Amino acid sequence: MKIKEGLFKISLGIDIGGTNIKIGLVKNNKIIKKGIFKTEKDLDNQRFGNYLIEIIKGFIKDYKIDKIGIGIAGYVFYEKGILKFSPNLPKLKNFSLKEVIEKHFLVETFVLNDADAMAIGEYFYHNKKYKNLITITLGTGVGSGIIVNNKLLYNSEFGHTILIPFGALCSCGKKGCVESYLGSYGMLRIAREFYKRGIKNLTPKKIYEMAKNNEERALKTIEKYSFYLAIALSNLINIFNPEIVILNGGISNMGNLLLKFIRPMLKENTFYLPKIKISNLKIDAGIIGAVNFNLFKDK
Amino acid sequence: MKIKEGLFKISLGIDIGGTNIKIGLVKNNKIIKKGIFKTEKDLDNQRFGNYLIEIIKGFIKDYKIDKIGIGIAGYVFYEKGILKFSPNLPKLKNFSLKEVIEKHFLVETFVLNDADAMAIGEYFYHNKKYKNLITITLGTGVGSGIIVNNKLLYNSEFGHTILIPFGALCSCGKKGCVESYLGSYGMLRIAREFYKRGIKNLTPKKIYEMAKNNEERALKTIEKYSFYLAIALSNLINIFNPEIVILNGGISNMGNLLLKFIRPMLKENTFYLPKIKISNLKIDAGIIGAVNFNLFKDK
Repeated sequence: MKIKEGLFKISLGIDIGGTNIKIGLVKNNKIIKKGIFKTEKDLDNQRFGNYLIEIIKGFIKDYKIDKIGIGIAGYVFYEKGILKFSPNLPKLKNFSLKEVIEKHFLVETFVLNDADAMAIGEYFYHNKKYKNLITITLGTGVGSGIIVNNKLLYNSEFGHTILIPFGALCSCGKKGCVESYLGSYGMLRIAREFYKRGIKNLTPKKIYEMAKNNEERALKTIEKYSFYLAIALSNLINIFNPEIVILNGGISNMGNLLLKFIRPMLKENTFYLPKIKISNLKIDAGIIGAVNFNLFKDK
Repeated sequence: MKIKEGLFKISLGIDIGGTNIKIGLVKNNKIIKKGIFKTEKDLDNQRFGNYLIEIIKGFIKDYKIDKIGIGIAGYVFYEKGILKFSPNLPKLKNFSLKEVIEKHFLVETFVLNDADAMAIGEYFYHNKKYKNLITITLGTGVGSGIIVNNKLLYNSEFGHTILIPFGALCSCGKKGCVESYLGSYGMLRIAREFYKRGIKNLTPKKIYEMAKNNEERALKTIEKYSFYLAIALSNLINIFNPEIVILNGGISNMGNLLLKFIRPMLKENTFYLPKIKISNLKIDAGIIGAVNFNLFKDK
Protein backbone atom coordinates (compact mmCIF):
# COMPACT_ATOMS: atom_id res chain seq x y z
CA MET A 1 0.00 0.00 0.00
CA LYS A 2 1.40 3.36 -0.96
CA ILE A 3 -1.00 5.29 1.23
CA LYS A 4 -2.11 4.30 4.69
CA GLU A 5 -5.83 4.09 5.00
CA GLY A 6 -6.97 7.01 7.08
CA LEU A 7 -10.38 8.11 8.18
CA PHE A 8 -11.51 8.20 4.60
CA LYS A 9 -11.24 5.34 2.23
CA ILE A 10 -10.06 5.66 -1.33
CA SER A 11 -12.61 5.23 -4.09
CA LEU A 12 -12.22 5.02 -7.84
CA GLY A 13 -14.22 7.34 -10.08
CA ILE A 14 -14.41 6.97 -13.86
CA ASP A 15 -15.98 9.26 -16.43
CA ILE A 16 -16.42 7.63 -19.85
CA GLY A 17 -17.18 10.14 -22.57
CA GLY A 18 -17.25 9.87 -26.34
CA THR A 19 -13.62 11.06 -26.59
CA ASN A 20 -11.84 10.38 -23.31
CA ILE A 21 -11.97 8.17 -20.27
CA LYS A 22 -11.10 10.19 -17.18
CA ILE A 23 -10.19 8.25 -14.09
CA GLY A 24 -9.37 9.40 -10.59
CA LEU A 25 -8.70 8.14 -7.08
CA VAL A 26 -10.92 10.01 -4.68
CA LYS A 27 -10.30 10.47 -0.99
CA ASN A 28 -12.51 12.68 1.12
CA ASN A 29 -14.04 14.08 -2.06
CA LYS A 30 -10.65 15.23 -3.36
CA ILE A 31 -8.94 13.62 -6.34
CA ILE A 32 -5.52 12.40 -5.23
CA LYS A 33 -4.46 10.85 -8.54
CA LYS A 34 -5.83 11.44 -12.00
CA GLY A 35 -5.46 9.84 -15.42
CA ILE A 36 -6.84 10.27 -18.90
CA PHE A 37 -7.18 7.65 -21.61
CA LYS A 38 -8.62 7.54 -25.08
CA THR A 39 -12.13 6.09 -25.44
CA GLU A 40 -11.82 3.23 -27.92
CA LYS A 41 -15.10 3.74 -29.71
CA ASP A 42 -14.84 0.77 -32.05
CA LEU A 43 -14.82 -1.88 -29.34
CA ASP A 44 -17.91 -3.95 -28.62
CA ASN A 45 -19.21 -4.75 -25.13
CA GLN A 46 -16.73 -7.49 -24.31
CA ARG A 47 -13.63 -5.84 -25.73
CA PHE A 48 -14.54 -2.50 -24.24
CA GLY A 49 -14.96 -4.20 -20.87
CA ASN A 50 -11.49 -5.75 -21.15
CA TYR A 51 -9.98 -2.45 -22.24
CA LEU A 52 -11.48 -0.72 -19.23
CA ILE A 53 -10.31 -3.48 -16.86
CA GLU A 54 -6.74 -3.03 -18.12
CA ILE A 55 -6.91 0.72 -17.57
CA ILE A 56 -8.24 0.27 -14.04
CA LYS A 57 -5.71 -2.44 -13.19
CA GLY A 58 -2.79 -0.27 -14.15
CA PHE A 59 -4.22 2.75 -12.42
CA ILE A 60 -5.06 1.28 -9.01
CA LYS A 61 -2.24 -1.18 -8.66
CA ASP A 62 -0.77 0.32 -5.47
CA TYR A 63 -4.09 1.18 -3.84
CA LYS A 64 -6.87 -0.57 -2.05
CA ILE A 65 -10.21 0.83 -3.15
CA ASP A 66 -13.56 0.51 -1.45
CA LYS A 67 -15.87 1.24 -4.37
CA ILE A 68 -15.94 2.13 -8.05
CA GLY A 69 -18.30 4.69 -9.56
CA ILE A 70 -18.63 4.97 -13.33
CA GLY A 71 -20.37 7.71 -15.26
CA ILE A 72 -20.89 6.91 -18.92
CA ALA A 73 -22.38 8.89 -21.80
CA GLY A 74 -25.64 7.14 -22.55
CA TYR A 75 -28.87 5.76 -21.20
CA VAL A 76 -28.19 3.68 -18.08
CA PHE A 77 -30.42 1.31 -16.16
CA TYR A 78 -28.70 2.45 -13.00
CA GLU A 79 -30.22 -0.14 -10.67
CA LYS A 80 -28.55 -2.94 -12.58
CA GLY A 81 -25.66 -0.85 -13.87
CA ILE A 82 -26.45 -1.63 -17.49
CA LEU A 83 -25.71 0.79 -20.32
CA LYS A 84 -28.76 0.43 -22.54
CA PHE A 85 -27.33 2.42 -25.44
CA SER A 86 -25.11 5.39 -26.10
CA PRO A 87 -25.37 7.80 -29.04
CA ASN A 88 -21.65 8.52 -28.54
CA LEU A 89 -20.55 4.89 -28.16
CA PRO A 90 -22.76 3.15 -30.68
CA LYS A 91 -20.94 -0.19 -30.45
CA LEU A 92 -22.04 -0.66 -26.86
CA LYS A 93 -25.54 -2.09 -26.38
CA ASN A 94 -27.14 -3.52 -23.22
CA PHE A 95 -23.71 -3.54 -21.70
CA SER A 96 -23.61 -4.99 -18.15
CA LEU A 97 -20.80 -2.71 -17.08
CA LYS A 98 -21.43 -3.07 -13.33
CA GLU A 99 -21.33 -6.84 -13.52
CA VAL A 100 -18.16 -6.92 -15.65
CA ILE A 101 -16.25 -4.64 -13.29
CA GLU A 102 -17.53 -6.17 -10.05
CA LYS A 103 -16.71 -9.66 -11.24
CA HIS A 104 -13.14 -8.71 -11.98
CA PHE A 105 -12.26 -6.42 -9.09
CA LEU A 106 -14.64 -7.77 -6.44
CA VAL A 107 -15.42 -4.20 -5.43
CA GLU A 108 -18.89 -2.68 -5.29
CA THR A 109 -19.49 -0.76 -8.50
CA PHE A 110 -22.14 1.76 -9.56
CA VAL A 111 -22.87 2.89 -13.08
CA LEU A 112 -24.85 5.94 -14.09
CA ASN A 113 -25.20 8.46 -16.88
CA ASP A 114 -22.19 10.79 -17.06
CA ALA A 115 -24.20 14.01 -16.80
CA ASP A 116 -26.13 12.59 -13.85
CA ALA A 117 -22.76 11.88 -12.19
CA MET A 118 -21.76 15.50 -12.73
CA ALA A 119 -24.94 16.73 -11.05
CA ILE A 120 -24.18 14.55 -8.03
CA GLY A 121 -20.61 15.83 -8.01
CA GLU A 122 -21.87 19.41 -7.88
CA TYR A 123 -24.46 18.51 -5.26
CA PHE A 124 -21.80 17.23 -2.86
CA TYR A 125 -19.32 19.94 -3.81
CA HIS A 126 -21.92 22.48 -2.68
CA ASN A 127 -22.45 20.54 0.56
CA LYS A 128 -26.00 19.46 -0.38
CA LYS A 129 -27.05 23.08 -0.11
CA TYR A 130 -29.10 23.06 -3.32
CA LYS A 131 -31.87 20.52 -3.40
CA ASN A 132 -32.88 21.67 -6.88
CA LEU A 133 -29.79 21.83 -9.05
CA ILE A 134 -29.17 21.62 -12.77
CA THR A 135 -25.83 21.16 -14.45
CA ILE A 136 -25.41 21.51 -18.19
CA THR A 137 -22.28 20.35 -20.00
CA LEU A 138 -21.39 22.31 -23.10
CA GLY A 139 -18.82 20.15 -24.83
CA THR A 140 -18.79 18.09 -28.01
CA GLY A 141 -22.27 17.11 -26.92
CA VAL A 142 -24.66 18.74 -24.47
CA GLY A 143 -25.42 16.82 -21.28
CA SER A 144 -27.94 17.55 -18.56
CA GLY A 145 -27.84 16.47 -14.93
CA ILE A 146 -30.95 17.43 -13.01
CA ILE A 147 -31.65 17.10 -9.30
CA VAL A 148 -35.23 17.75 -8.17
CA ASN A 149 -35.95 17.89 -4.49
CA ASN A 150 -32.74 16.01 -3.63
CA LYS A 151 -33.56 13.28 -6.15
CA LEU A 152 -31.89 12.62 -9.45
CA LEU A 153 -33.98 12.81 -12.61
CA TYR A 154 -32.24 9.88 -14.26
CA ASN A 155 -31.11 9.97 -17.86
CA SER A 156 -32.54 13.34 -18.76
CA GLU A 157 -31.65 14.16 -22.35
CA PHE A 158 -32.10 17.89 -22.53
CA GLY A 159 -29.42 18.00 -25.25
CA HIS A 160 -31.82 16.18 -27.53
CA THR A 161 -34.86 18.30 -26.99
CA ILE A 162 -35.76 20.44 -29.98
CA LEU A 163 -34.64 24.05 -29.75
CA ILE A 164 -35.34 25.05 -33.36
CA PRO A 165 -37.98 23.03 -35.22
CA PHE A 166 -36.59 21.98 -38.63
CA GLY A 167 -33.26 23.37 -37.46
CA ALA A 168 -29.70 22.13 -37.88
CA LEU A 169 -29.06 18.39 -38.16
CA CYS A 170 -27.99 16.78 -34.89
CA SER A 171 -25.66 13.82 -34.37
CA CYS A 172 -28.71 11.88 -33.12
CA GLY A 173 -30.38 12.18 -36.52
CA LYS A 174 -33.05 14.65 -35.44
CA LYS A 175 -33.19 18.26 -36.53
CA GLY A 176 -32.83 21.33 -34.36
CA CYS A 177 -31.77 19.67 -31.09
CA VAL A 178 -30.26 21.80 -28.32
CA GLU A 179 -27.00 19.92 -28.92
CA SER A 180 -26.89 20.90 -32.58
CA TYR A 181 -26.73 24.56 -31.46
CA LEU A 182 -24.92 24.40 -28.13
CA GLY A 183 -22.39 21.61 -28.73
CA SER A 184 -18.96 22.45 -30.20
CA TYR A 185 -20.15 21.83 -33.75
CA GLY A 186 -23.10 24.09 -33.11
CA MET A 187 -20.79 26.92 -32.13
CA LEU A 188 -18.67 26.36 -35.23
CA ARG A 189 -21.76 26.45 -37.43
CA ILE A 190 -22.71 29.76 -35.87
CA ALA A 191 -19.14 31.00 -36.42
CA ARG A 192 -19.46 30.25 -40.11
CA GLU A 193 -22.01 33.05 -40.40
CA PHE A 194 -19.40 35.58 -39.33
CA TYR A 195 -16.09 34.14 -40.53
CA LYS A 196 -15.82 34.24 -44.29
CA ARG A 197 -12.45 32.50 -44.25
CA GLY A 198 -10.18 30.76 -41.77
CA ILE A 199 -13.01 28.60 -40.52
CA LYS A 200 -11.17 25.37 -41.22
CA ASN A 201 -9.11 25.10 -38.06
CA LEU A 202 -11.43 27.08 -35.85
CA THR A 203 -12.35 25.67 -32.45
CA PRO A 204 -14.46 27.09 -29.61
CA LYS A 205 -11.20 27.64 -27.74
CA LYS A 206 -9.72 29.71 -30.56
CA ILE A 207 -12.92 31.70 -30.85
CA TYR A 208 -12.65 32.49 -27.16
CA GLU A 209 -9.02 33.57 -27.50
CA MET A 210 -9.99 35.95 -30.29
CA ALA A 211 -12.98 37.24 -28.34
CA LYS A 212 -10.71 38.13 -25.44
CA ASN A 213 -8.85 40.35 -27.90
CA ASN A 214 -12.16 41.95 -28.87
CA GLU A 215 -12.12 40.39 -32.30
CA GLU A 216 -15.54 41.29 -33.70
CA ARG A 217 -16.42 38.04 -35.47
CA ALA A 218 -15.57 36.03 -32.38
CA LEU A 219 -17.67 38.28 -30.18
CA LYS A 220 -20.58 38.05 -32.59
CA THR A 221 -20.29 34.26 -32.63
CA ILE A 222 -20.36 34.07 -28.86
CA GLU A 223 -23.23 36.53 -28.68
CA LYS A 224 -25.33 34.50 -31.08
CA TYR A 225 -24.39 31.27 -29.32
CA SER A 226 -25.44 32.89 -26.05
CA PHE A 227 -28.79 33.74 -27.52
CA TYR A 228 -29.50 30.05 -28.13
CA LEU A 229 -28.05 29.15 -24.75
CA ALA A 230 -30.32 31.65 -23.02
CA ILE A 231 -33.42 30.22 -24.68
CA ALA A 232 -32.44 26.69 -23.74
CA LEU A 233 -31.63 27.59 -20.14
CA SER A 234 -34.73 29.74 -19.68
CA ASN A 235 -36.86 26.78 -20.77
CA LEU A 236 -35.21 24.54 -18.22
CA ILE A 237 -35.57 27.19 -15.53
CA ASN A 238 -39.26 27.72 -16.23
CA ILE A 239 -39.88 24.00 -16.00
CA PHE A 240 -37.76 23.22 -12.95
CA ASN A 241 -37.41 26.37 -10.83
CA PRO A 242 -33.89 25.27 -9.80
CA GLU A 243 -31.94 27.12 -7.15
CA ILE A 244 -28.78 26.98 -9.21
CA VAL A 245 -27.70 26.22 -12.78
CA ILE A 246 -24.07 25.18 -13.18
CA LEU A 247 -22.38 25.22 -16.56
CA ASN A 248 -19.59 22.80 -17.34
CA GLY A 249 -17.72 21.51 -20.40
CA GLY A 250 -15.14 23.13 -22.66
CA ILE A 251 -17.36 25.98 -23.87
CA SER A 252 -18.20 26.97 -20.28
CA ASN A 253 -14.57 28.05 -19.96
CA MET A 254 -15.67 31.22 -21.72
CA GLY A 255 -17.07 32.01 -18.30
CA ASN A 256 -17.95 35.62 -17.68
CA LEU A 257 -18.18 36.46 -21.35
CA LEU A 258 -20.94 33.90 -21.72
CA LEU A 259 -22.65 34.98 -18.49
CA LYS A 260 -22.55 38.63 -19.52
CA PHE A 261 -24.57 37.80 -22.62
CA ILE A 262 -27.04 35.32 -21.14
CA ARG A 263 -27.90 36.92 -17.78
CA PRO A 264 -30.08 39.78 -19.12
CA MET A 265 -31.85 37.40 -21.52
CA LEU A 266 -32.53 34.92 -18.73
CA LYS A 267 -33.84 37.66 -16.51
CA GLU A 268 -36.31 38.66 -19.16
CA ASN A 269 -37.47 35.14 -19.94
CA THR A 270 -37.87 33.45 -16.57
CA PHE A 271 -40.30 33.81 -13.68
CA TYR A 272 -37.55 33.23 -11.12
CA LEU A 273 -33.90 33.68 -11.96
CA PRO A 274 -31.70 31.17 -10.15
CA LYS A 275 -27.96 31.45 -9.62
CA ILE A 276 -26.03 30.81 -12.83
CA LYS A 277 -22.45 29.66 -12.26
CA ILE A 278 -19.52 28.15 -14.10
CA SER A 279 -18.46 24.88 -12.46
CA ASN A 280 -15.50 25.00 -10.10
CA LEU A 281 -15.12 21.24 -10.32
CA LYS A 282 -14.75 21.32 -14.10
CA ILE A 283 -13.95 17.87 -15.47
CA ASP A 284 -13.64 16.44 -11.97
CA ALA A 285 -17.40 16.76 -11.42
CA GLY A 286 -18.16 13.43 -13.09
CA ILE A 287 -15.50 11.52 -11.15
CA ILE A 288 -16.52 13.00 -7.79
CA GLY A 289 -20.18 12.39 -8.56
CA ALA A 290 -19.75 8.80 -9.69
CA VAL A 291 -18.06 7.71 -6.45
CA ASN A 292 -20.77 9.42 -4.42
CA PHE A 293 -23.64 7.77 -6.25
CA ASN A 294 -24.30 5.25 -3.49
CA LEU A 295 -24.54 8.03 -0.91
CA PHE A 296 -27.01 9.86 -3.08
CA LYS A 297 -29.15 6.93 -4.18
CA ASP A 298 -30.11 6.03 -0.64
CA LYS A 299 -31.35 9.50 0.20
CA MET B 1 -76.43 16.85 7.82
CA LYS B 2 -77.79 15.64 4.51
CA ILE B 3 -75.42 12.70 4.32
CA LYS B 4 -74.35 10.55 7.20
CA GLU B 5 -70.63 10.44 7.64
CA GLY B 6 -69.47 7.02 6.58
CA LEU B 7 -66.04 5.54 6.32
CA PHE B 8 -64.95 8.38 4.11
CA LYS B 9 -65.27 11.97 5.04
CA ILE B 10 -66.41 14.65 2.67
CA SER B 11 -63.83 17.11 1.42
CA LEU B 12 -64.17 20.25 -0.63
CA GLY B 13 -62.12 20.70 -3.79
CA ILE B 14 -61.88 23.95 -5.72
CA ASP B 15 -60.25 24.66 -9.06
CA ILE B 16 -59.78 28.38 -9.75
CA GLY B 17 -58.94 29.09 -13.37
CA GLY B 18 -58.82 32.29 -15.37
CA THR B 19 -62.42 31.83 -16.55
CA ASN B 20 -64.27 29.59 -14.09
CA ILE B 21 -64.21 28.43 -10.52
CA LYS B 22 -65.10 24.76 -10.34
CA ILE B 23 -66.08 23.42 -6.97
CA GLY B 24 -66.95 19.93 -5.80
CA LEU B 25 -67.68 17.83 -2.76
CA VAL B 26 -65.47 14.78 -2.82
CA LYS B 27 -66.14 11.53 -1.03
CA ASN B 28 -63.95 8.49 -1.52
CA ASN B 29 -62.37 10.22 -4.52
CA LYS B 30 -65.74 10.65 -6.24
CA ILE B 31 -67.39 14.01 -6.75
CA ILE B 32 -70.85 13.87 -5.16
CA LYS B 33 -71.87 17.46 -5.86
CA LYS B 34 -70.45 19.90 -8.37
CA GLY B 35 -70.78 23.60 -9.08
CA ILE B 36 -69.32 26.13 -11.47
CA PHE B 37 -68.96 29.87 -10.94
CA LYS B 38 -67.47 32.73 -12.89
CA THR B 39 -63.98 33.83 -11.87
CA GLU B 40 -64.29 37.52 -11.01
CA LYS B 41 -60.98 38.65 -12.42
CA ASP B 42 -61.22 42.28 -11.42
CA LEU B 43 -61.31 41.67 -7.68
CA ASP B 44 -58.25 42.29 -5.54
CA ASN B 45 -56.99 39.91 -2.81
CA GLN B 46 -59.51 40.91 -0.15
CA ARG B 47 -62.57 41.11 -2.36
CA PHE B 48 -61.66 37.91 -4.19
CA GLY B 49 -61.30 36.20 -0.81
CA ASN B 50 -64.77 37.37 0.20
CA TYR B 51 -66.24 36.30 -3.14
CA LEU B 52 -64.77 32.83 -2.72
CA ILE B 53 -66.00 32.57 0.87
CA GLU B 54 -69.54 33.35 -0.27
CA ILE B 55 -69.36 30.67 -2.98
CA ILE B 56 -68.09 28.09 -0.51
CA LYS B 57 -70.64 29.03 2.15
CA GLY B 58 -73.55 28.54 -0.24
CA PHE B 59 -72.11 25.35 -1.62
CA ILE B 60 -71.33 23.47 1.59
CA LYS B 61 -74.18 24.67 3.74
CA ASP B 62 -75.68 21.23 4.38
CA TYR B 63 -72.40 19.38 4.72
CA LYS B 64 -69.64 18.95 7.22
CA ILE B 65 -66.30 18.97 5.49
CA ASP B 66 -62.96 17.74 6.82
CA LYS B 67 -60.59 19.67 4.54
CA ILE B 68 -60.46 22.11 1.65
CA GLY B 69 -58.07 21.79 -1.28
CA ILE B 70 -57.68 24.66 -3.72
CA GLY B 71 -55.90 24.60 -7.05
CA ILE B 72 -55.33 28.02 -8.55
CA ALA B 73 -53.78 29.17 -11.83
CA GLY B 74 -50.50 30.80 -10.80
CA TYR B 75 -47.32 30.48 -8.84
CA VAL B 76 -48.06 29.18 -5.34
CA PHE B 77 -45.88 29.02 -2.25
CA TYR B 78 -47.63 25.83 -1.32
CA GLU B 79 -46.18 25.44 2.17
CA LYS B 80 -47.83 28.66 3.27
CA GLY B 81 -50.69 28.48 0.78
CA ILE B 82 -49.85 31.86 -0.72
CA LEU B 83 -50.53 32.71 -4.35
CA LYS B 84 -47.44 34.69 -5.33
CA PHE B 85 -48.81 35.88 -8.66
CA SER B 86 -51.00 34.66 -11.48
CA PRO B 87 -50.67 35.63 -15.15
CA ASN B 88 -54.40 34.82 -15.51
CA LEU B 89 -55.54 36.66 -12.36
CA PRO B 90 -53.31 39.72 -12.40
CA LYS B 91 -55.17 41.52 -9.59
CA LEU B 92 -54.10 38.87 -7.09
CA LYS B 93 -50.62 39.30 -5.61
CA ASN B 94 -49.08 37.58 -2.56
CA PHE B 95 -52.54 36.39 -1.71
CA SER B 96 -52.71 34.40 1.56
CA LEU B 97 -55.50 32.20 0.30
CA LYS B 98 -54.94 29.39 2.80
CA GLU B 99 -55.08 31.77 5.74
CA VAL B 100 -58.20 33.55 4.50
CA ILE B 101 -60.14 30.32 4.02
CA GLU B 102 -58.91 28.60 7.19
CA LYS B 103 -59.74 31.64 9.30
CA HIS B 104 -63.28 31.71 8.04
CA PHE B 105 -64.19 28.02 7.89
CA LEU B 106 -61.86 26.67 10.59
CA VAL B 107 -61.07 23.73 8.31
CA GLU B 108 -57.59 22.70 7.22
CA THR B 109 -56.95 24.14 3.76
CA PHE B 110 -54.26 23.50 1.14
CA VAL B 111 -53.46 25.67 -1.84
CA LEU B 112 -51.44 24.65 -4.87
CA ASN B 113 -51.02 25.40 -8.53
CA ASP B 114 -54.01 24.20 -10.58
CA ALA B 115 -51.99 22.09 -13.00
CA ASP B 116 -50.11 20.53 -10.08
CA ALA B 117 -53.49 19.63 -8.59
CA MET B 118 -54.47 17.94 -11.84
CA ALA B 119 -51.31 15.83 -11.79
CA ILE B 120 -52.13 14.68 -8.26
CA GLY B 121 -55.70 13.94 -9.34
CA GLU B 122 -54.41 11.71 -12.13
CA TYR B 123 -51.87 10.10 -9.81
CA PHE B 124 -54.58 8.95 -7.41
CA TYR B 125 -57.02 8.13 -10.21
CA HIS B 126 -54.40 5.69 -11.53
CA ASN B 127 -53.96 4.24 -8.05
CA LYS B 128 -50.40 5.59 -7.65
CA LYS B 129 -49.33 3.23 -10.41
CA TYR B 130 -47.22 5.81 -12.24
CA LYS B 131 -44.47 7.38 -10.20
CA ASN B 132 -43.39 9.50 -13.17
CA LEU B 133 -46.45 11.16 -14.63
CA ILE B 134 -47.00 14.30 -16.68
CA THR B 135 -50.31 15.96 -17.36
CA ILE B 136 -50.67 18.77 -19.85
CA THR B 137 -53.77 20.93 -20.05
CA LEU B 138 -54.58 22.28 -23.47
CA GLY B 139 -57.13 24.98 -22.79
CA THR B 140 -57.15 28.75 -23.02
CA GLY B 141 -53.68 28.42 -21.54
CA VAL B 142 -51.33 25.47 -21.34
CA GLY B 143 -50.66 24.03 -17.89
CA SER B 144 -48.16 21.38 -16.85
CA GLY B 145 -48.34 19.10 -13.83
CA ILE B 146 -45.25 16.96 -13.41
CA ILE B 147 -44.62 14.15 -10.93
CA VAL B 148 -41.06 12.82 -10.73
CA ASN B 149 -40.39 9.75 -8.66
CA ASN B 150 -43.63 10.21 -6.67
CA LYS B 151 -42.79 13.85 -5.96
CA LEU B 152 -44.42 16.92 -7.41
CA LEU B 153 -42.28 19.32 -9.40
CA TYR B 154 -44.02 22.39 -8.02
CA ASN B 155 -45.08 25.27 -10.24
CA SER B 156 -43.59 23.98 -13.47
CA GLU B 157 -44.42 26.41 -16.28
CA PHE B 158 -43.93 24.35 -19.39
CA GLY B 159 -46.56 26.49 -21.12
CA HIS B 160 -44.15 29.40 -20.96
CA THR B 161 -41.08 27.68 -22.31
CA ILE B 162 -40.13 28.81 -25.78
CA LEU B 163 -41.21 26.50 -28.57
CA ILE B 164 -40.44 28.81 -31.50
CA PRO B 165 -37.78 31.50 -30.92
CA PHE B 166 -39.13 34.87 -32.09
CA GLY B 167 -42.48 33.13 -32.60
CA ALA B 168 -46.03 34.24 -31.90
CA LEU B 169 -46.69 36.68 -29.07
CA CYS B 170 -47.84 35.01 -25.85
CA SER B 171 -50.20 36.35 -23.18
CA CYS B 172 -47.20 36.47 -20.84
CA GLY B 173 -45.46 39.03 -23.04
CA LYS B 174 -42.78 36.68 -24.37
CA LYS B 175 -42.61 35.41 -27.93
CA GLY B 176 -42.97 31.85 -29.13
CA CYS B 177 -44.11 30.20 -25.89
CA VAL B 178 -45.63 26.73 -25.98
CA GLU B 179 -48.91 28.34 -24.89
CA SER B 180 -48.93 30.72 -27.85
CA TYR B 181 -49.07 27.65 -30.14
CA LEU B 182 -50.95 25.08 -28.08
CA GLY B 183 -53.49 27.23 -26.22
CA SER B 184 -56.89 27.94 -27.83
CA TYR B 185 -55.64 31.16 -29.41
CA GLY B 186 -52.68 29.27 -30.80
CA MET B 187 -54.98 26.84 -32.53
CA LEU B 188 -57.05 29.69 -33.95
CA ARG B 189 -53.91 31.40 -35.26
CA ILE B 190 -52.97 28.17 -37.01
CA ALA B 191 -56.52 27.91 -38.38
CA ARG B 192 -56.14 31.35 -39.94
CA GLU B 193 -53.56 29.91 -42.34
CA PHE B 194 -56.15 27.57 -43.80
CA TYR B 195 -59.45 29.41 -43.40
CA LYS B 196 -59.62 32.38 -45.69
CA ARG B 197 -63.02 33.41 -44.37
CA GLY B 198 -65.37 32.46 -41.55
CA ILE B 199 -62.58 32.69 -39.00
CA LYS B 200 -64.45 35.19 -36.84
CA ASN B 201 -66.57 32.82 -34.79
CA LEU B 202 -64.26 29.85 -35.04
CA THR B 203 -63.42 27.93 -31.87
CA PRO B 204 -61.36 24.78 -31.32
CA LYS B 205 -64.64 22.99 -30.71
CA LYS B 206 -66.06 24.06 -34.07
CA ILE B 207 -62.84 23.08 -35.79
CA TYR B 208 -63.17 19.64 -34.25
CA GLU B 209 -66.78 19.32 -35.39
CA MET B 210 -65.73 20.14 -38.95
CA ALA B 211 -62.77 17.77 -38.76
CA LYS B 212 -65.09 14.94 -37.82
CA ASN B 213 -66.88 15.64 -41.10
CA ASN B 214 -63.53 15.42 -42.90
CA GLU B 215 -63.51 19.12 -43.68
CA GLU B 216 -60.08 19.69 -45.16
CA ARG B 217 -59.19 23.03 -43.55
CA ALA B 218 -60.12 21.71 -40.12
CA LEU B 219 -58.03 18.59 -40.60
CA LYS B 220 -55.08 20.66 -41.79
CA THR B 221 -55.41 22.93 -38.76
CA ILE B 222 -55.40 19.98 -36.38
CA GLU B 223 -52.52 18.36 -38.22
CA LYS B 224 -50.39 21.48 -37.94
CA TYR B 225 -51.38 21.98 -34.32
CA SER B 226 -50.39 18.37 -33.68
CA PHE B 227 -46.98 19.03 -35.18
CA TYR B 228 -46.32 21.69 -32.54
CA LEU B 229 -47.84 19.51 -29.85
CA ALA B 230 -45.58 16.61 -30.81
CA ILE B 231 -42.45 18.77 -30.58
CA ALA B 232 -43.49 20.11 -27.20
CA LEU B 233 -44.35 16.68 -25.81
CA SER B 234 -41.24 15.01 -27.22
CA ASN B 235 -39.12 17.63 -25.44
CA LEU B 236 -40.84 16.91 -22.15
CA ILE B 237 -40.51 13.17 -22.68
CA ASN B 238 -36.79 13.38 -23.47
CA ILE B 239 -36.21 15.40 -20.32
CA PHE B 240 -38.40 13.41 -17.92
CA ASN B 241 -38.76 9.85 -19.23
CA PRO B 242 -42.29 9.70 -17.77
CA GLU B 243 -44.28 6.48 -17.75
CA ILE B 244 -47.41 8.27 -18.90
CA VAL B 245 -48.42 11.60 -20.41
CA ILE B 246 -52.07 12.56 -19.87
CA LEU B 247 -53.69 15.29 -21.95
CA ASN B 248 -56.49 17.36 -20.51
CA GLY B 249 -58.31 20.61 -21.30
CA GLY B 250 -60.83 21.51 -23.99
CA ILE B 251 -58.57 20.78 -26.95
CA SER B 252 -57.79 17.30 -25.63
CA ASN B 253 -61.42 16.41 -26.37
CA MET B 254 -60.25 15.96 -29.96
CA GLY B 255 -58.92 12.71 -28.56
CA ASN B 256 -58.01 10.08 -31.07
CA LEU B 257 -57.71 12.54 -33.91
CA LEU B 258 -54.95 14.32 -32.02
CA LEU B 259 -53.30 11.07 -30.95
CA LYS B 260 -53.36 9.74 -34.49
CA PHE B 261 -51.28 12.71 -35.64
CA ILE B 262 -48.85 12.95 -32.72
CA ARG B 263 -48.03 9.29 -32.01
CA PRO B 264 -45.82 8.67 -35.06
CA MET B 265 -44.03 12.00 -34.52
CA LEU B 266 -43.41 11.21 -30.87
CA LYS B 267 -42.12 7.77 -31.75
CA GLU B 268 -39.59 9.32 -34.09
CA ASN B 269 -38.46 12.02 -31.69
CA THR B 270 -38.14 10.29 -28.31
CA PHE B 271 -35.75 7.74 -26.84
CA TYR B 272 -38.56 6.04 -24.92
CA LEU B 273 -42.17 6.48 -25.85
CA PRO B 274 -44.44 6.52 -22.79
CA LYS B 275 -48.17 5.94 -22.76
CA ILE B 276 -50.05 8.93 -24.17
CA LYS B 277 -53.64 9.19 -22.97
CA ILE B 278 -56.55 11.59 -22.90
CA SER B 279 -57.68 12.22 -19.31
CA ASN B 280 -60.68 10.27 -18.08
CA LEU B 281 -61.08 12.66 -15.17
CA LYS B 282 -61.42 15.68 -17.47
CA ILE B 283 -62.20 18.82 -15.50
CA ASP B 284 -62.60 16.83 -12.28
CA ALA B 285 -58.84 16.17 -12.15
CA GLY B 286 -58.08 19.49 -10.43
CA ILE B 287 -60.79 19.07 -7.78
CA ILE B 288 -59.81 15.47 -7.00
CA GLY B 289 -56.14 16.43 -6.89
CA ALA B 290 -56.59 19.46 -4.66
CA VAL B 291 -58.34 17.50 -1.90
CA ASN B 292 -55.64 14.83 -2.05
CA PHE B 293 -52.75 17.26 -1.74
CA ASN B 294 -52.16 16.51 1.93
CA LEU B 295 -51.94 12.77 1.23
CA PHE B 296 -49.42 13.43 -1.48
CA LYS B 297 -47.30 16.04 0.24
CA ASP B 298 -46.36 13.73 3.06
CA LYS B 299 -45.15 10.98 0.81
